[in-house]
Amino acid sequence: MSSLFGLQENELPKVEKQIKKFIHNYISNEQLKESMLYSVNAGGKRLRPLLVLATVHDFEQELSLSSYQIASALEMVHTYSLIHDDLPAMDDDDLRRGNPTNHMVFGEGLAILAGDALLTGAFELITRTETTSKKKNQLLQLLASAAGPSGMVAGQVEDIQSEQVRLSFAELANLHQKKTGALIRFAVVSGGILTEQSDVVLAQLSEFADHLGLAFQIRDDLLDELATTKQLGKKTQKDNIAGKNTYPALLGIEEAKLALEEQLRQARNALEEITNENFTPRLLQEVIKLFELERGSE
Amino acid sequence: MSSLFGLQENELPKVEKQIKKFIHNYISNEQLKESMLYSVNAGGKRLRPLLVLATVHDFEQELSLSSYQIASALEMVHTYSLIHDDLPAMDDDDLRRGNPTNHMVFGEGLAILAGDALLTGAFELITRTETTSKKKNQLLQLLASAAGPSGMVAGQVEDIQSEQVRLSFAELANLHQKKTGALIRFAVVSGGILTEQSDVVLAQLSEFADHLGLAFQIRDDLLDELATTKQLGKKTQKDNIAGKNTYPALLGIEEAKLALEEQLRQARNALEEITNENFTPRLLQEVIKLFELERGSE
Repeated sequence: MSSLFGLQENELPKVEKQIKKFIHNYISNEQLKESMLYSVNAGGKRLRPLLVLATVHDFEQELSLSSYQIASALEMVHTYSLIHDDLPAMDDDDLRRGNPTNHMVFGEGLAILAGDALLTGAFELITRTETTSKKKNQLLQLLASAAGPSGMVAGQVEDIQSEQVRLSFAELANLHQKKTGALIRFAVVSGGILTEQSDVVLAQLSEFADHLGLAFQIRDDLLDELATTKQLGKKTQKDNIAGKNTYPALLGIEEAKLALEEQLRQARNALEEITNENFTPRLLQEVIKLFELERGSE
Repeated sequence: MSSLFGLQENELPKVEKQIKKFIHNYISNEQLKESMLYSVNAGGKRLRPLLVLATVHDFEQELSLSSYQIASALEMVHTYSLIHDDLPAMDDDDLRRGNPTNHMVFGEGLAILAGDALLTGAFELITRTETTSKKKNQLLQLLASAAGPSGMVAGQVEDIQSEQVRLSFAELANLHQKKTGALIRFAVVSGGILTEQSDVVLAQLSEFADHLGLAFQIRDDLLDELATTKQLGKKTQKDNIAGKNTYPALLGIEEAKLALEEQLRQARNALEEITNENFTPRLLQEVIKLFELERGSE
């Protein structure tokens, strides 16, 4: 394929197809299936699967079945995290991307279980991926570590704990590195594992992903600050009202914009430093452009 | 070791040690750690780890590090399921084993996250188990399948759906085969995988575990019906009040007792039919005795 647009148009639907295939093949309870599919189908730009596919593509110029499967598992983990984060006991969100959140439609009990099911199902999907046991174990360990109590779950706990507490820039960045950064890092590094990169290259990919993840969060905060409810389809300035820590609140809007540019610059540099001569980061460079502020909402 | 009592006294503490080691090594957030350890330490008889160890022992007369690790991961998954099941949106229990449930102590948000963390951590622990990648992948797939949307999570959904609906014996048994039976089956079959049994023997172990799992649930229902709040340390007759389906409610107490005996008889038969001449089911036979009604509460 020739462009990120091509990837989004032609390849992401294959990821969605894999998720739906898994849900249809392995789940017999209709209501559970419906609740899981509701959130899977709620859309979003599929950033994490896009990163898996773009990374694999930039190394090998083609995509294997295992790439789609790993991308699918990752999107299932991301979807689980959104369902649980939206619960009344957590962020208490009624809307996501303009639609009622899972628990508003299916009730809290089923929403918790749909999240549990997507998380567990993601691990099952990886065990069924078309690749070697060794590679599957490496991917499973990395995903569990990224999503679990030393990664995303820890970030969500810290996010709850830090409401009404003013964090420093470094503390906020550290929180986001767990809460949203860990899965973004998995997305990029899993692309490196799938294409059998050296540990050195995996570390370079990880460095790139960390800058990208931080940029993602700064941009998200800025959009929340700048946009209106109607444009984003979710409550805005909610973060502010809840006394949450955001980059614009911490740095001011202009400084936050500069911090975003700085992270994108460092992400570009990190890509240039990757020491594999077959690596042509065309699609990943396009991903970086997606993160520029003027490109509209993620 | 010579007896099930020896296993309980000397080997189960090693399983608990593995869980705590994992939590201490991989989790930096203190409150999350505290919430996870609270439920891990809340006790219970550790039936599932006991089954893993007893099965491995009956095939090989000794226990490997991987046996303790798999037993630990399984107990973490079981603990996660209890935390989520106790939530207000699910069974809404304030007490478990005489102590306040996780969300009563730490709040609903942290309880949901502690459950998520235990589930994800269990998968990570298996990826770090001392065995081959192939065996780890087999165990991960089996556990995800047992715990996930075709197993335990589906059972919990059906349990919620069937409140105020009168199920038949077969329907109730089917629900329990998912809700509690799936993890019990994993416990026994994982012992077979760890000791490299043939597919035929794994199927025979699965048959044994299914009878044991059903016996476990019938016995649990009977105890709930017969015991007082003080003896069990949790609300009793609660199932009845909520209009839940139980074996005593469905069959009457005497018939339920007979059904329990019948399942234990079939479990004994299944053990005798296992076609591996190195298999001496001494400890598993002792486990069956634990399930007889007069042996006190599980």
